[in-house]
Amino acid sequence: MNQPEPYQSEIATRIDRIESRFAMQDLVSDYCHGFDKRDWDRFLAIWWPEAVWDIGPPFGKFEAHAGIEHVVKDILWPAWLASSHFTTNLVLTFDGADKASGVSDVDCIGTTADGQAQTVSASYFDRFERRKGIWKIAHRKVTMYHFSPLPGVTLSPPE
Amino acid sequence: MNQPEPYQSEIATRIDRIESRFAMQDLVSDYCHGFDKRDWDRFLAIWWPEAVWDIGPPFGKFEAHAGIEHVVKDILWPAWLASSHFTTNLVLTFDGADKASGVSDVDCIGTTADGQAQTVSASYFDRFERRKGIWKIAHRKVTMYHFSPLPGVTLSPPE
Amino acid sequence: MNQPEPYQSEIATRIDRIESRFAMQDLVSDYCHGFDKRDWDRFLAIWWPEAVWDIGPPFGKFEAHAGIEHVVKDILWPAWLASSHFTTNLVLTFDGADKASGVSDVDCIGTTADGQAQTVSASYFDRFERRKGIWKIAHRKVTMYHFSPLPGVTLSPPE
Repeated sequence: MNQPEPYQSEIATRIDRIESRFAMQDLVSDYCHGFDKRDWDRFLAIWWPEAVWDIGPPFGKFEAHAGIEHVVKDILWPAWLASSHFTTNLVLTFDGADKASGVSDVDCIGTTADGQAQTVSASYFDRFERRKGIWKIAHRKVTMYHFSPLPGVTLSPPE
Repeated sequence: MNQPEPYQSEIATRIDRIESRFAMQDLVSDYCHGFDKRDWDRFLAIWWPEAVWDIGPPFGKFEAHAGIEHVVKDILWPAWLASSHFTTNLVLTFDGADKASGVSDVDCIGTTADGQAQTVSASYFDRFERRKGIWKIAHRKVTMYHFSPLPGVTLSPPE
Repeated sequence: MNQPEPYQSEIATRIDRIESRFAMQDLVSDYCHGFDKRDWDRFLAIWWPEAVWDIGPPFGKFEAHAGIEHVVKDILWPAWLASSHFTTNLVLTFDGADKASGVSDVDCIGTTADGQAQTVSASYFDRFERRKGIWKIAHRKVTMYHFSPLPGVTLSPPE
């Protein structure tokens, strides 16, 4: 027999919700790929033009593509010789079809410009928005639990 | 032409399976958010009332909400000044529509009450059950590979 | 009213794409479970028979099940007393229904055969293929950012 209209509509909504989840997971992952692999286009692509990135102390809050470009290219990339960010525990909460919030936890290891190995633990609190079918980050707040040296550790690639 | 009944039924089953996966991923993530962010309601919500949490040595096995509340509030939260659990590699295996098992690997860094930075690696072996449309953990077994100090490391937030 | 054929076809394609994502996530996870838990069958099952595993320096490139078995059983498992690999940030890109590429970042901690605790950071660049409904890895390239000792650290399980 025919399936009534609402059935197809419900199935389409549920699939759209699932695909949106993957799109948002990719934003969270591409933040790391863009930043650590120093791929500027990949990094910029995750943010809406007016997005706010609230990094917290000691860095501050940065707005819009110009502000985000400034903090990455003038402050953060020079501050790190190399970094590896590993994001985990992403939990998404929808607010209708085109808005969602997310929380994830990041484990980071790397070497700052002074040659010191560092360990960082933080959480990312995100607000995502979909516009014309595309999801991006509208707001990211970073809460850092630690940013601390690993004395005596030198991080280098294998020969 | 009409799609026969079995088609819609198969599609609905496959979507239900996918949504169940996300529900279980969220349980695994919320264990970390609840524990590390010290959000008791979030932590408790992942467990069925009679759930068993087998933490292994040196902690032991704890049963039901009362046992789980005891170990967290009386033993584990006092044992840690701060902790960051990063869960990865979750693989789920279904046993029908309402039961599943999962294995995941957790990387943890934190500071115990004595002020010592620690590194922990473990796996979580979970049995999940769905009741009245809600997935929760019925049994979690922890296998710890290491729980060891990081000498000379002090974990603290940035200024 | 009847849904035209293309509708069901589109829904089925979208669900197939989602299920494929989970299958590939499981391959990336099972690489870790197989290797770290020393489960050879689980490890082997992720690779197509002629798959290439390009580990890079100092290990090299290994081909097909025989080459992969050799490097794991004769080189890597003897080289590590214990290892914990945590994969994160998996981003998948499809090339039609039966091929995809993936990038993920792995954080690894463990102890080499000399008793030294090590920290490793790397990325995995994968080519996945689906044959007769089953996804496996056809090619994995490893790029290592660091493979370095943690001086003074001894990783051991709790008593």
